[in-house]
Amino acid sequence: MSSPATSILDSRVESILSGDVRAAARLMRDLDDAVPSARAAVRELHSHTGRAFIVGVTGNPGSGKSTLTDQLIDHWRQSGLTVGVVAIDPTSPFTGGAILGDRVRMQRHSTDDGVFIRSLATRGHLGGLSRSTLDVVRVMDAMGKDIIIIETVGVGQDEIEVTRAAHSSVVVVVPGLGDDIQAIKAGILEIADIFVVNKADRQGADRTVQDLRTMLDLFRPSGGRLDSSWAEAPRGVAQSSGEGGWSVPILKTVATDGDGISDVAAGLNEHRRHLESCGDWTRRERDRARLELIEALREQLVSGCLQALEADDGRLDEIVGRIASRKADPYTLASEIARDHILEPGSSS
Amino acid sequence: MSSPATSILDSRVESILSGDVRAAARLMRDLDDAVPSARAAVRELHSHTGRAFIVGVTGNPGSGKSTLTDQLIDHWRQSGLTVGVVAIDPTSPFTGGAILGDRVRMQRHSTDDGVFIRSLATRGHLGGLSRSTLDVVRVMDAMGKDIIIIETVGVGQDEIEVTRAAHSSVVVVVPGLGDDIQAIKAGILEIADIFVVNKADRQGADRTVQDLRTMLDLFRPSGGRLDSSWAEAPRGVAQSSGEGGWSVPILKTVATDGDGISDVAAGLNEHRRHLESCGDWTRRERDRARLELIEALREQLVSGCLQALEADDGRLDEIVGRIASRKADPYTLASEIARDHILEPGSSS
Repeated sequence: MSSPATSILDSRVESILSGDVRAAARLMRDLDDAVPSARAAVRELHSHTGRAFIVGVTGNPGSGKSTLTDQLIDHWRQSGLTVGVVAIDPTSPFTGGAILGDRVRMQRHSTDDGVFIRSLATRGHLGGLSRSTLDVVRVMDAMGKDIIIIETVGVGQDEIEVTRAAHSSVVVVVPGLGDDIQAIKAGILEIADIFVVNKADRQGADRTVQDLRTMLDLFRPSGGRLDSSWAEAPRGVAQSSGEGGWSVPILKTVATDGDGISDVAAGLNEHRRHLESCGDWTRRERDRARLELIEALREQLVSGCLQALEADDGRLDEIVGRIASRKADPYTLASEIARDHILEPGSSS
Repeated sequence: MSSPATSILDSRVESILSGDVRAAARLMRDLDDAVPSARAAVRELHSHTGRAFIVGVTGNPGSGKSTLTDQLIDHWRQSGLTVGVVAIDPTSPFTGGAILGDRVRMQRHSTDDGVFIRSLATRGHLGGLSRSTLDVVRVMDAMGKDIIIIETVGVGQDEIEVTRAAHSSVVVVVPGLGDDIQAIKAGILEIADIFVVNKADRQGADRTVQDLRTMLDLFRPSGGRLDSSWAEAPRGVAQSSGEGGWSVPILKTVATDGDGISDVAAGLNEHRRHLESCGDWTRRERDRARLELIEALREQLVSGCLQALEADDGRLDEIVGRIASRKADPYTLASEIARDHILEPGSSS
């Protein structure tokens, strides 16, 4: 542990722990490129994490979730909090997508050292979305960012998985798209801790709030019941229900004007307090730890197994050839390999 | 193998092999829901695959790749070929995204039994994008579809991986977005077998063709060199270079009017013949087989390992707890688990 490599590692880790933006950006690039020393640094950083409040913001392209995120950054910066953003939606202005005007507007944070934005949509991320997201969140947490936003488009199981890494999840919808409300999947309803009806100056906003409330009543009858005054309330923050559960608030915003943003921030703060008081904070930390373990295993087990097969005198080539020639199917072969290569419990530890 | 369960399985497999659309759709749903019998059916189907020509169509949202796909379907249907489409882009009209007019137009294929469209963007796909895509392609191949199109948005490593499952990859760009051309990653250049400059009636189309040619010359100096007459040619089909390599054609289309579509179809046909004549068809089949194996291993090894840890008297809980409390990091623990659980080569087979 006293080799020169260790001291380079230590200085890198120390730079990041002191909040050095360039060191953090370099580490994230190295992680993308699978540089071995980068992984070693992330291992080191893990013990320095656990302080950040991690918020998922999910919504379809066009829902305005990036504008909402942008305004939330502003709100929190004015309170003196530092913010990290991991943007996954390829159409997000944060990732360089969407229309040019948006993209330029988002860049106003680029000169603010208290904001760190990282796009995962346009970079290679070996090992999949989840692992990259977890790594980037870990680095931002170690840097000392107070709040970390994970911005995802609300489709795909992978992205729902990613949102499980957050302490609180905000789902953004827009009014007037009856079909889209119908298409909201149970998965999205399950992950939402707060619903935001953005573009609430449009016709049909109240109807959308009502539809959401009905769906929540159907899908989350316990803990998800909403205060009946919500549909009528112009804008505001939800009250936790008095029954110990969390009552999912439905908040109206006009993100482009900044309307309702402070309510969303207050709602998130309240949800955080709720998690801490009822012990769910610890449960969500364990959920993330489990996800982190599975992602790490996915990589280590597969690469270990492929290496073993490759070293086994051309056995990998032979297996691939049998699949390609349709002599055997990949699932049956993978089962056989897993059976042969995974030790029974007890024989290991 | 003569149990009642087997005969149900057999009849299901036979229905799909005879092209039964409802049986295929049901199987795909069951795969999403991880129904065990669905996996057994896919294992059976694997030996009946390998006939379809698999085409990847990649492009940013707004590039018109769905319209191009739609027109290609038409073209091939008129030649009497059957077509399958796996749509992954969440903003694609095939997946229910994009603007309403588009979506309705795409539905003209919904009454045609020779066309099978499956969206993966809005369904859960446990195990990730790659595995789901490979499964759906496998089912469509077994159904007897002549051509299978995988439609993806051109960002993210996962989606580039998916494209590797195709025999031929078409990358769609639009003129006038100088920035976007710059942003085309080497990864996209590597996978493109054919470039399509869509919306070629817009200003700057020739410039875009030239820019692409320059980039191809830079990034793919061997085999990727383009015939210099291409930039000037109004529309047409590329010639393979005479050197045994494939010269990536850059084709101009106006997909909304159907202009240039037959050239794209002809270019794909030519690329297919090229693959078959030079032996690269077999190489790409092996690439897909390897991807299929890795995806299957990812699932089997991780689930096998988690089961082993869970059976080992609370060891999984203890490990998750150590990660959550930051006593240990997930990568180090995963390495230890992989080391303990993966047998050395030779000791297995």
